[in-house]
This record gives sequence, structure tokens and C-alpha cells, in this order.
Amino acid sequence: MIDLASDVKTRPTAAMRQAMAMAEVGDEQAFEDPTVNALNTRVAALLGKEAALFAPSGAMCNQIAIATWCRPGDEVICDAGAHIAWYESGGPAANSGVMINTIPGHRGRFNAAQLAAAIKPGWRHCPEATLVSIEQTCNLGGGAIWSLDDLDAVAALAHQRGLKTHMDGARLFNASAATGISVDRYAEHFDSVWVDFSKGLAAPVGACLAGSKAFIDRAWRIKQRLGGAMRQAGILAAAALYALDHHVDRLVDDHGNARKLAEGLARIPGLVLDPTEVETNLIYFDVDATVLGFDAQEFCKRLLAANVRMTAFDSRRIRAVTHLDVSAADIDTALVAIQSLASR
Amino acid sequence: MIDLASDVKTRPTAAMRQAMAMAEVGDEQAFEDPTVNALNTRVAALLGKEAALFAPSGAMCNQIAIATWCRPGDEVICDAGAHIAWYESGGPAANSGVMINTIPGHRGRFNAAQLAAAIKPGWRHCPEATLVSIEQTCNLGGGAIWSLDDLDAVAALAHQRGLKTHMDGARLFNASAATGISVDRYAEHFDSVWVDFSKGLAAPVGACLAGSKAFIDRAWRIKQRLGGAMRQAGILAAAALYALDHHVDRLVDDHGNARKLAEGLARIPGLVLDPTEVETNLIYFDVDATVLGFDAQEFCKRLLAANVRMTAFDSRRIRAVTHLDVSAADIDTALVAIQSLASR
Amino acid sequence: MIDLASDVKTRPTAAMRQAMAMAEVGDEQAFEDPTVNALNTRVAALLGKEAALFAPSGAMCNQIAIATWCRPGDEVICDAGAHIAWYESGGPAANSGVMINTIPGHRGRFNAAQLAAAIKPGWRHCPEATLVSIEQTCNLGGGAIWSLDDLDAVAALAHQRGLKTHMDGARLFNASAATGISVDRYAEHFDSVWVDFSKGLAAPVGACLAGSKAFIDRAWRIKQRLGGAMRQAGILAAAALYALDHHVDRLVDDHGNARKLAEGLARIPGLVLDPTEVETNLIYFDVDATVLGFDAQEFCKRLLAANVRMTAFDSRRIRAVTHLDVSAADIDTALVAIQSLASR
Amino acid sequence: MIDLASDVKTRPTAAMRQAMAMAEVGDEQAFEDPTVNALNTRVAALLGKEAALFAPSGAMCNQIAIATWCRPGDEVICDAGAHIAWYESGGPAANSGVMINTIPGHRGRFNAAQLAAAIKPGWRHCPEATLVSIEQTCNLGGGAIWSLDDLDAVAALAHQRGLKTHMDGARLFNASAATGISVDRYAEHFDSVWVDFSKGLAAPVGACLAGSKAFIDRAWRIKQRLGGAMRQAGILAAAALYALDHHVDRLVDDHGNARKLAEGLARIPGLVLDPTEVETNLIYFDVDATVLGFDAQEFCKRLLAANVRMTAFDSRRIRAVTHLDVSAADIDTALVAIQSLASR
Repeated sequence: MIDLASDVKTRPTAAMRQAMAMAEVGDEQAFEDPTVNALNTRVAALLGKEAALFAPSGAMCNQIAIATWCRPGDEVICDAGAHIAWYESGGPAANSGVMINTIPGHRGRFNAAQLAAAIKPGWRHCPEATLVSIEQTCNLGGGAIWSLDDLDAVAALAHQRGLKTHMDGARLFNASAATGISVDRYAEHFDSVWVDFSKGLAAPVGACLAGSKAFIDRAWRIKQRLGGAMRQAGILAAAALYALDHHVDRLVDDHGNARKLAEGLARIPGLVLDPTEVETNLIYFDVDATVLGFDAQEFCKRLLAANVRMTAFDSRRIRAVTHLDVSAADIDTALVAIQSLASR
Repeated sequence: MIDLASDVKTRPTAAMRQAMAMAEVGDEQAFEDPTVNALNTRVAALLGKEAALFAPSGAMCNQIAIATWCRPGDEVICDAGAHIAWYESGGPAANSGVMINTIPGHRGRFNAAQLAAAIKPGWRHCPEATLVSIEQTCNLGGGAIWSLDDLDAVAALAHQRGLKTHMDGARLFNASAATGISVDRYAEHFDSVWVDFSKGLAAPVGACLAGSKAFIDRAWRIKQRLGGAMRQAGILAAAALYALDHHVDRLVDDHGNARKLAEGLARIPGLVLDPTEVETNLIYFDVDATVLGFDAQEFCKRLLAANVRMTAFDSRRIRAVTHLDVSAADIDTALVAIQSLASR
Repeated sequence: MIDLASDVKTRPTAAMRQAMAMAEVGDEQAFEDPTVNALNTRVAALLGKEAALFAPSGAMCNQIAIATWCRPGDEVICDAGAHIAWYESGGPAANSGVMINTIPGHRGRFNAAQLAAAIKPGWRHCPEATLVSIEQTCNLGGGAIWSLDDLDAVAALAHQRGLKTHMDGARLFNASAATGISVDRYAEHFDSVWVDFSKGLAAPVGACLAGSKAFIDRAWRIKQRLGGAMRQAGILAAAALYALDHHVDRLVDDHGNARKLAEGLARIPGLVLDPTEVETNLIYFDVDATVLGFDAQEFCKRLLAANVRMTAFDSRRIRAVTHLDVSAADIDTALVAIQSLASR
Repeated sequence: MIDLASDVKTRPTAAMRQAMAMAEVGDEQAFEDPTVNALNTRVAALLGKEAALFAPSGAMCNQIAIATWCRPGDEVICDAGAHIAWYESGGPAANSGVMINTIPGHRGRFNAAQLAAAIKPGWRHCPEATLVSIEQTCNLGGGAIWSLDDLDAVAALAHQRGLKTHMDGARLFNASAATGISVDRYAEHFDSVWVDFSKGLAAPVGACLAGSKAFIDRAWRIKQRLGGAMRQAGILAAAALYALDHHVDRLVDDHGNARKLAEGLARIPGLVLDPTEVETNLIYFDVDATVLGFDAQEFCKRLLAANVRMTAFDSRRIRAVTHLDVSAADIDTALVAIQSLASR
């Protein structure tokens, strides 16, 4: 099967499995796991921060950061399509008591003026904005990349107004691969940032959250509170270290495949997308049911029968994602299957 | 001073004070305060609900309703300018752990299609919408009135999708006064609804939240938890009862004054508003700083010096509110002062 | 009826009603209510603090203080019978996300050594104690009074260990009346303290929370969030001011009546108590069902039929409370009724 | 080094590493990880429940269970030394808004009468108890085992009073190994129960929470909210499956070693413990500083210099734990080192 459902679907390679099997491990909660320690040190350096902490998921990194930076009743400002607003089961409110104030951005991004307009007056009956959170790249924004200018301006305004800045870097390596801008430069003005190992980097489990030493100290308490503190997590960290060594540079291949897929899709009657918007490894396209005679759900169902998997968001919208387990040849095969589907 | 800052500024009349001074009282928490009991019974009947509960503020009624209907991580859907999103210090998230999902409505109102679009998919990683909350009239919407059609359609869709419906009736009596539609008809398809006594009704303190018996039973527990359970609250309830007897019918006067003020303002160069949008007792208008030579903050400051008080929202926007303590003659006086200010 | 159920049952006197009827009022949220302002200023001075804030209940004062001092996951240390643990509907955890760590004290009081033993190690997987809360007098402790020595030592240890100190002064005036020690001396080493007006002071509604200016600034935000911000609350504050003028000195009468009642009860076969433990206005006694032939519930039921009201806690324990509406003669009458009940 | 600090310190064996390296994996959030699925199915069956869910830690299983069973303001009843009260960073209050009501049990255990006495009256100002949580075996209770009679009676009373029952089975396999009573029999009357793989079973990471299908459905939402949803977690689940196959029966060896260590310690002057209380793999003993000339902290420090690790709780109390990485010969060696330490 050609699985374009998500980059979280990747399975560890034989070499990565070998790295895990050989990992030296210990109790990570007592800082006795040398592999986890090495990963945290490496990620902190990579992101230009003082310290980092390994967690079982990127979602937990977001939840930890929010709980660390905010108090109940505070407001977190983010794009209307942010992962924290959509896909963390209401965690920001449930775990930290914070209000989410969403900006209707452009493909997941907003600018400093929009942020300024979103900050409520400083009256005590208004929730107090204490954190701005951005996603690099933007998942619901179709993998769009924040420009450095916007990132820097948003962070500068946030700091000037007393807000902390947080970067959800689930696909930060993809942004970097696409633009050549380093991940630490992207994260430079962000007080906290995390990267995921289980998406494009193709490790099985885990993410690292980075920030100042004081931030990570407090974050540890929250990790413990959420139940994210593990024991011999070096098994997982070994895969992450392997991924940092071997799976970062190849992200450009995923982007090439995504662009190729997008261009192919755009040529198929009944499918609507703008391939120039495909900047990284995410492709969103619309199904024109009038032309095809069926909707997005049915499209994905039929495609699955042809051994290609994509995800329907609703009756109209479909998401495809390229990753390590999808080759250029797979893209060709998938396009043939889709072409055949659309021409019936 | 002519105080157009808010309808919460009204002071109790001599007759209302007399009613308070004579009130028979007891311990309301033990249901031993006959005046509070009478008020709750009366309001429940007025709103067409089984039961009601007196609380020290309308904001607390909102907080109680949310905590009663929702569990942490749930989503409450409301207009982007809703009081619960803007002016309750982050209470929904802090007190109940709920996410606020805002619809960018038209002057505070949205329709069933917008509600349907706002409900996230039923996946377990999406917050689950369990409550829709509407404001009648819409404060930040300039006192706009929800139509019965929209209310009924929104409530029907909500119920069909498993959501409860809540009406913030801070100015529900104003809507009723303006349209002649009864308050219980407006509230008919709403599982919970509250009315305020300290706004247009001119009582000093308090609001009543109404719903089914089971809802009010649970609501009592939340009222206790928030610290809203009082003792001889009959003193306050007496004012509310007096207000129901004497201050409901006269709300049309406030609306007349508001319209008069709006029309006067619209004729003054440098002030921008559409008087036909003034449906009740709230007037929002813009200051054209280019014409006037000063902004909204300065406008309000100079106006105060002329013994007229209004509120500046930001550099551009001003709110004025008519109420019991503002007469038609006061409107004339205020307009003269403003005219003079604008022509300097 | 002679109502010994609680000191919250008092009804305002004619003179107090007059004070309320005459009160000058305004919008307390905008600091425009002169009577509320006067009350806050007076209470702050009385308690030796910089500032104070009026709230609709003492429970809300506790909830505000906890939310102001603590972050979610923190631990509040108090006696096992503390009001915050028993009678605030789980507010500490629900409103502020804090853990309650209870000390099994002696009649509601504990000492510095017990506090030291209750503070958990500073490991990040232990909840961090950030507040110690004491009750003066102790309700479930039978109105027992904390000694100054214990208060000072507990506060000193708390501060040394980085905890803030909070005093629930629901009946602080009773402690002061009984010992002659001033309320500000009792509160001297407490970072926050509140006094209630609706208990022994016999006002209808409200309490005042005091602390530093910074504390009260933050507390205002929480008051708003909980829905405790009112409008023309000067009506209630006027009663509180009246109570401060006229009902403080007379608390010694309540204590005399309580002692008299306790001594009378102790002479009645089947009732078990130690009158020397009755230090203020609360009397707890046990019913020996073997002697009487019926339990506490039945005792209270029969007593009510004889026009005397007390409260049964369980099958064995009864609480009686003296207050403004109970005279020395009432005590005699009550004792006759009880004597008659017990001898049947 | 002989590491008696904790059974969480075990490192995966070569065979376990091999099982991990060979594991078939997929996206566990989409129920596509066959190894995680197999583990969940097996654990559900083992514990006599309908369904189970894998999580990164036992602490998260506790947090999920509490959030699933309770609403904010509810009360969870447990022993005063419960893990949820001591070692989850205040998670119950922070994540779920629940109050913890602790019973001062005997070595971590209490009986039905104590539970009955701990349930507060059903008044709405008392927190409502909705869950009782017990630990089998009791960590701070020295590894003491709940008797079936007590478990059944506590569960029966809880259900009769409307509470759900939860078993923290961090060391449930140890209890079963010690008594021969099956884990499902222990868990029979508990609505939720979890077992840990990273303690005595010696897997690197993870635990499984089991209950009814409806419970696990809801639990998944909370797991997502806390950030515990992973991707190719089959790597970890493979170790857990291996442990179930190979490390359960051998727990009796750990118990034998613990008893041997306890008996040896009891013979050393200056060390105080009752070896008959050592029922499983946990040994707590006191240091008599008068005899030894140094306290528990110093004891552990010196012991570490002799290559034996134990943990000091405070100045007096020490914990030692036996596990897979500690042999009978290690116990002899450790006892020699301790003997030498004590006789200096």
C-alpha cells in the first residue's frame, strides 16, 4: 500500500531498529539515561536553546509549554487552524485553564499587526494574553512556511507586549529543508520550541521541547504531572538520534515528491488545488463532486481499494502527505490510480 | 453628570430602596429567604423554565451554566464578541476547563449554517462541542437583536447535534421591549437562560439563571463552589422584584433615547455611525480623528469635562448606553456638549 | 423559634436596614461605590493590611486567595476539618487546580512541627506546597481559638519554607472578643486574611479579603473570573459598616450564652460535651442514644417541634451556635425544652 | 553497582531488546499497531476487563482514570500515602480538578468502615466523592498487600454509595506472585485497573489501563489530551509482551531476595525494621542515628561509595527494592557492605 495518510505512519528502518536495540539506557527521570541525555543536549544545541526535554509526543510538548508559561484564565493567541485548538482534545483549557484566542490567518500564518489587534485590553475582566503560539510549518495551512520576517516581527511584538513566544515545530525541519534557513534561526526569538521525531524524521515515538534552563526545569514538573515521565526512554531517543543523523537531509525528497504529486493532481479533472502552494510535504486538495460524481469520503474509499491511502477531512477536502516510506515511483503509481478513479 | 458609560451605573430609586428596606429575609442557601424564593419562582415562570437561582452577577450565571453543562476539554461555541470570551477574565477555561470556539458573526449573531460549520469532527483528538451560547441582545454587537428565526434554527441544530443551548440574557428584556416578543418565547429552545437586574432594570446587584430542575440542582453546587452562595440575599432580591414590577415596561424609553442620541450623533461631522443599527439601548460610534483632530480617548476625556460620560474602547470607538438615570432632556444636553466639542 | 442552627441565620436589625436604605452607592467594579470603598479601606486598616476587597461570601474570599497565591498542581496545607476541604464544593481543586494536604490537628489547630512534617520533599513529582491556610476560630474544631504562639510559629515556618500564609477569619472577631487580642495582631504574619459580616456580625451578605496591594490587584481579577464582581454593592457594604460599629463588642454576649448553654447541656443525662472547650460561640455535643433512646437526627427533629433549632451532623453529633438573635433568656428556654426532651 | 534504589531502574535484557527490534509496528492512535493491539487485548483478558489502553507511564494511567471517572470538584478517596497524592505533581487537582480526601490507613490499606467514615455528607457544599482509589501493593506502605476481603468490601461499599473503584496496580503482579491470587481476581470489583511494565516486569517504558469498553473509549480522549498518544509504540509494547511471558513468574525471586535482605538488615545494630512486614519486593527501614552516628542521607551516601544504592526518604527512613537486576548473591554482597558500614 502507498500510504499518503500522514507522515506519522512511517515505520522505523532496519538501521534505526538496530540503533534502538543497541541503545544504552537508564532512568530518564533521574537523568540516568545517557541516550536521552545525549538527545536533549543535541536538540537544545540544534535549536539554540539552553536545555531540552524528551516527551512521548509533540502534543505533550505543546501542553507542557502552555502549562509552564501560563496561569489559568490567561489567553494563548494562535491561528484559527492551530493544532492546539483543533487536535489536542481541548488540552489547553483542560490541562492549563487557558483561553484560546484565534486569529483567522492566511494558511496558518498571521502578522504582527494581526497579533496586535488580537490582544485584548489590559482590563482585569479581559483574559490576559501571555503566550503567542505559532506552527512551523502550518498543518491545516497546507504545510505553508512562516517567513522569517513574520516570525521575527510577531515575536518582537509579543515580547514588547509582555507575551512569551512558543513555536510548535512539528514540521520545523521541513521548513528548514525547504528554505535553507536553519532551525535555530527560525526559533531564535521563540522562548520555547519543539521538534517532532515521529513525523518526517520517521522515528517511532517522541518529541523534544527546548527553552531556557529555568523553563525546562519547570517543564519537567508538568511532564511529570501529565504522566509523560518515562523510564528507559533511551530506546526511543536512540531512534530520534538516528533520525537526526540520517533523515533530516532527505526531507527535500519528500518535498519534491509532494510537488510532483500536487502537479499531477492539478492536471486531473475534478481535483482542485494550486500546486504552487505546496511548499513542503503536505498537499490539500478539493474534490469537485459534480465532475467526479462522488465526494471526498468516497474518493478516499475507492482510492484505498486501489491500495493508495489519503485522508478525507470532510465531504470536499482531502489531505495527502509524503514521507520516508513513499518514493517518487510511488507517486507515479498513486497518480495512475487516481487518474483511473477520476476518469471512470 | 450625564452618565452614558453603562446601564450598570444606575442607582436604586427611593422606592426600590424602600422595597429593599422592607424585605423579609432568611438564609437563601437553606431556601429560607422568602424574597429570594419568590424571585426565583417568578423568574422561572417568566422565562418558561422549571426553576431558577439567584446569583450575585450575570457573569456568574454564565460561569455556572458552563460548568454545569460541560466537562473539561469540551468546546463552547459562541460569537467572537461574546461576553464569555471577552469580559469574564478567562472564566470558561479557568473555572470549567472548556475551550471557546468563536464564530465571526454579524454584530454578535450567527446562523445555523455557521454553527454547523464551527462544530469540529467527532474525532477524539478534537475538542467536543457540548454547548452553544448566544447573547440577547449582543453587547459588542451594538445591542443587536437575534431574530426568533435564527435563535430557533441555531437551537434546533445544536440539539440535533447533541449540544446544549445557553442564552446570556443580560439585556434580554431590552430585546423583548424592542420587538414585543416575550422573553419566554425568546428562551423557549434554550436549555439555560439568565436575566440581569443590575443593567436596564436598575437594581443594584444580581441576576437569575433559569433552566430545568435537574439543571438548577447541579447549578447550585457550582454556585457554592464559585463562592456565590449568599445568606440574607432577600435584600437584593427585593430590588429585583421591584424592578420586574416597575422597570421593564419603561425600557422602550431607553431605546427611544438611544435612537435619538444616535441620530443626533450621526449629524455631527467627525462622528461615524448608522443610527438604523441602534435597535436597543447601546450606541457604538467611531471617531474620525482626521476631522475632529483628536481620538476617542481624548473625545471621552473632553466630554467628561463637559459632564457627559461615555466609554472609549480604543483610539477610534466609543460606546454610549441609555438607561433609567438618563432622560430625553439629558440626551439633548449631551448632544449640545458633543456638538460643541466637535466644532472646536 | 429559637434558632441555634447557625450564626449565619441572623436577620438585619431595623437600624442596619436603615443604614442600607441610606447608603450612597455606585459601581463597585469601577471603584465608584463610596460605601464599598469605605468598607474596604476600613477593613484593610483594621486587619493591618494595605488593601481589601469586598466579596459576596467568605467562601469566595478563600477561593480568591487560593487562586491568587497558587498555581495548578500546588499544594495547600490545612487542618483536616478546614472549611476549604469540607464546605466549598471542591472549589480549591475545581477553581484553582490545587491539592489539599490535610493535617489531623487538635480541634482544628496544628503546630509548626506538624506543618513541617506535612510539607512534602521538594522533588518535582511531589506537589509543591505554596500556601498554608488556617481558620480562626475553627468551625469543625468547635470554635477553638488558635493561640498567638501557634499562629506566629506556623507563619514563621511557612515563610521560611517559601509558603504564603492565609487566614480564614470567618469568626476572627469571635477569637478577638474572647481573648482581647486584636484582629490585626492575629493576622500580623498572614499574607491574606478575610473577615465575614454575615456570621456573628449579623449583616446579611458579604466578606472582605485583605492583603498587600499587589495581592488585592491580582485578587480582583479572580473575583471577576468567579463572577463575584457586583455593581451597587454599597447596599451590602453599608450593613457591614454598621456591623463593625455596633456588633463587634457584643460578641462576648454570644460567648457567654454559649458557655451557659454548654454548661446546661452538660448537666443533662444523655448529652455529652466538655463545657470548658466552648471558647467562643460554637457548641458541639454528642447524643448518647442508649440513654436518650433516640439519635441526633431525631433529637433535632423533636427539638424543632419544641421551637428550638439545632443541626445534626450525623447520628451522634449536634451543633448549636449563639448569635445576635439569641438572648440569654432564649438559652434558658432552650435548656428547658431540651431537659424535657431528654427526660421523656 | 548493586542498585536497590528502585525496580524502575531495571534495564531491558538482550532477549527483550531482540523482541523490541523485531516488533511489527504501526500508528497506535489509529489502532494500526499490531503489537500495541495485541498487548491491549492480552492485558484486558488478564485483568478480566473488556478493553485496555497502552500509555507511556503508570502515572498517566492514574491521571486518565481520574479524569475519566470524575468531574471537577469531585472527591477521590485514597490512602494518605497514595502515589496519586504524593508523586504525580498534583495531577489529580491540576488535570481533573478533583479533591483528594486521604484516609490514614495501615501501611497503605484501609477498610470499608474507614471508607464509609471518609465519605462526606451529600450536601451540595461538600465535595462529592465519586471515586475510591487503592494501590496494590502499597508503595509507601512498604509493599503491603491488600487482602481480598478488604478489597472486595471496600469496592462493595463504594459501589453501594455510588463511587467508582480504581486500582493502581503498579505492583499488582507482585501481590499476585506473593499470594497466588490471580490479578483478575484482585481486580474483579474494580472499575478500572492498570499494571506497570517498567517496574518488576523490567520493560523500559509503559503501562496498560483496563476497564469497560465505554471507559476505555473515554479514556482515549484523555490520553490524547494529556499528550500520551504515541505512534509506533509497538516497539515498547513488544517489551511489555516479552515481560508478561518471561518476567512474571520470577517475581517470587525478588520477594525471596527482599525477605533475605530484610532479615539481614534486622540483625544489624542501628537498623530498625520488622522483616515479617516485607511481603513483596519493597523494604523500608529506619536508621538509628544514635547507634550509627550518622543519619539516613549519610548512610546512603556511604553505601553508594561501597557500590550499593538505596534511597533516603528523610533523615531517618531508607527504601530498598529488589528486582530483576539484583541477584541473591548481590543481597549477600550488599549486606556485607552495610554490616561494614554500621560497625565502623
